[in-house]
Amino acid sequence: MNTTPRIVVLGAGYAGMMTTKKLMKYLSPEEAEIVLVNKHNYHYQTTWLHEVAAGTINQNQVRIMIRDIISPNRVRLIYDTVEEIVTDEKIVKLENSEIPYDYLVISLGFETNTFGIKGMDEHAFFIESFDQCQLIREHIEYQFANYKNHPEADESSLTILVGGGGFTGIEFIGELVERIPNLCRKYDIERKKAKIINVEAAPSILPSFDPDLVQYAKKSLQDRGAEIMEGTRIQECTEEGFIVGDNNELIKAGTIVWTGGVTGNSVLGKSGFELTKGKVTVNGDLRAPGYENVFILGDCAWVMNKEDNRPYPPTAQAAMQHAITCAKNIRALLHNGTLEEFTFHDKGTVASLGVTDGMGTVFNGKKLYGKTAAAMKKVVDDRYLFLLGGPHLLLKKGKIRPF
Amino acid sequence: MNTTPRIVVLGAGYAGMMTTKKLMKYLSPEEAEIVLVNKHNYHYQTTWLHEVAAGTINQNQVRIMIRDIISPNRVRLIYDTVEEIVTDEKIVKLENSEIPYDYLVISLGFETNTFGIKGMDEHAFFIESFDQCQLIREHIEYQFANYKNHPEADESSLTILVGGGGFTGIEFIGELVERIPNLCRKYDIERKKAKIINVEAAPSILPSFDPDLVQYAKKSLQDRGAEIMEGTRIQECTEEGFIVGDNNELIKAGTIVWTGGVTGNSVLGKSGFELTKGKVTVNGDLRAPGYENVFILGDCAWVMNKEDNRPYPPTAQAAMQHAITCAKNIRALLHNGTLEEFTFHDKGTVASLGVTDGMGTVFNGKKLYGKTAAAMKKVVDDRYLFLLGGPHLLLKKGKIRPF
Repeated sequence: MNTTPRIVVLGAGYAGMMTTKKLMKYLSPEEAEIVLVNKHNYHYQTTWLHEVAAGTINQNQVRIMIRDIISPNRVRLIYDTVEEIVTDEKIVKLENSEIPYDYLVISLGFETNTFGIKGMDEHAFFIESFDQCQLIREHIEYQFANYKNHPEADESSLTILVGGGGFTGIEFIGELVERIPNLCRKYDIERKKAKIINVEAAPSILPSFDPDLVQYAKKSLQDRGAEIMEGTRIQECTEEGFIVGDNNELIKAGTIVWTGGVTGNSVLGKSGFELTKGKVTVNGDLRAPGYENVFILGDCAWVMNKEDNRPYPPTAQAAMQHAITCAKNIRALLHNGTLEEFTFHDKGTVASLGVTDGMGTVFNGKKLYGKTAAAMKKVVDDRYLFLLGGPHLLLKKGKIRPF
Repeated sequence: MNTTPRIVVLGAGYAGMMTTKKLMKYLSPEEAEIVLVNKHNYHYQTTWLHEVAAGTINQNQVRIMIRDIISPNRVRLIYDTVEEIVTDEKIVKLENSEIPYDYLVISLGFETNTFGIKGMDEHAFFIESFDQCQLIREHIEYQFANYKNHPEADESSLTILVGGGGFTGIEFIGELVERIPNLCRKYDIERKKAKIINVEAAPSILPSFDPDLVQYAKKSLQDRGAEIMEGTRIQECTEEGFIVGDNNELIKAGTIVWTGGVTGNSVLGKSGFELTKGKVTVNGDLRAPGYENVFILGDCAWVMNKEDNRPYPPTAQAAMQHAITCAKNIRALLHNGTLEEFTFHDKGTVASLGVTDGMGTVFNGKKLYGKTAAAMKKVVDDRYLFLLGGPHLLLKKGKIRPF
């Protein structure tokens, strides 16, 4: 009879991968069995997906085979889709089987939130999964090939309309202003015919950023041909484009992408967890309120900053820090130790604006611009690879190459 | 007053480019003004278009800027579309202007002939122009990206259906059997889900080839996953695919390409030339019957072999030989000399079956197979580049690189 407690980690995103890595390090096979469940046999860099969608990165750089990082000898890998968690029975129902757990880590990531904007679910693409971002890339190029071959085609088919001026939306625009001129050259299309338009309802894009940085980003993107429409509410998304503003103006586009909001995975609600705006507000030790053995991490969780009673920002950086606290707390539970409270260590945030431009803050709040920021962003990306898979993975998938 | 006779060359394909090159060599600026009219500012390798459509070649290798080969100081370059030739007035009407000529060379190339098959014009792509072949390439990849993102999608959307088992159709299949496995890997799709199907009405593909060569080609393509349906008549082309055979079987496909027939440019008919199956049967000196000063070359012409009273095959090799005879005969007309009769020097024909396979005959009728044939094919391609633009062009666009 096997009495080794079983830890089941759901989702191989930043939080799930890092939790699994840390559990492997903290616990021997005799102390706990570890199971990692993921839809695909690969982990992908969610924060790089906008580059896949724009077509500015080799897609293979964005994906990592899970078994290259997590040894199947130590961790049981199950590639399946989570359908529901039955907490009463300590069971996770998968599409093709079910798995009992003693300890559960829910790190299933985000789903796109369209805030009920009419037509958005039907007509817009989302920067949400690897597969969908490949489709966005192909969809964009197809518009160019098609326009070139049908001179009578509507010029607006070349327009790329991006809803939402948050982090993902703006980084995506940053890639598009580099990609689109290349497509124009490839298909002999005048650059000015292909519009790149960002629509944001709030008075300013990138609301959580310092105004100096926001100004810098706007100017950089506008100088390279993007239109930034701030304070512009999307009333409806149709097959043709967005209907915006009080005058219900139609902005036509061949490619429509919504980046304006995310929420937690819908499995949370289905499984009976209490939700606040689609996520679970977890305890300081990252457990779901009322559960001894269920941790919720990453984009599925609101983790509160006790200092100002507001949630920490839902970033990859935070998700990876959640993972460390979670793994330590599971070890504490197994050893009847004391659980620690999560504290976020802000290492700064840098947004890329294409390959050679960017802006953000680091460490002590110092502002970075331009090439320095772009390089810093790549260092941040590479640091994660190093933490995840050591120097080997860094060499294989890193953005800054030492040779 | 300018009394220098003006030679106008219509079309910058194999025949038009080579004629212009030879005229530049044979005639001084005092002897004749030379004008080259072409729709685009680039020449493209028509015989490489199937590689663009399959996505197996860098498209920039297929295109050559005309002004890199033909000096605008010697030749007036007009980038416009020919609408009609008014032979009575010795004028060519272009979309945006008109140009009078003293000597005219019509080398406007082919148009696709669907032989009246219902729906083919509406629903099939043609390997016809650079722009359209780029669209085919993008269309194919889009099917894969879309299928991957919509698992409920019909598997037949991955099928590529090629109508016509002639030279172009089979060379296209040869590229697809190399390209499709790569796309399957890129989008994590099982190879067997993506079908490549060739449909030919005649009892055998490649009817003008030696049966041994045909057998070799068939086996090579079938071994790499292509289906070859011979003796199968296409009754109709619909949005969904081909309806074939006596039982009206529907073969569904996401990509439909027709390669089954070509005819001469439709400007010929509009301009009052007498046509045989869409082309003009020219005199032995390559002039249109009844015209002292109009030459018709390449895919617009039937050039008869007096030995067996059948037309020579309409190949790039023949078109380039037409060019030399035509340029010599224009020089003869200017100098009141004797015009020469065209004779075709058959240097053999090699068909590629992908990058590393091929088959064909050379020089003395010797049969070639496999890598030797594939290499020979590249030598043939490179020879043309050398003839057209010398060692510089060969280095820039050639298929075999000396380093």
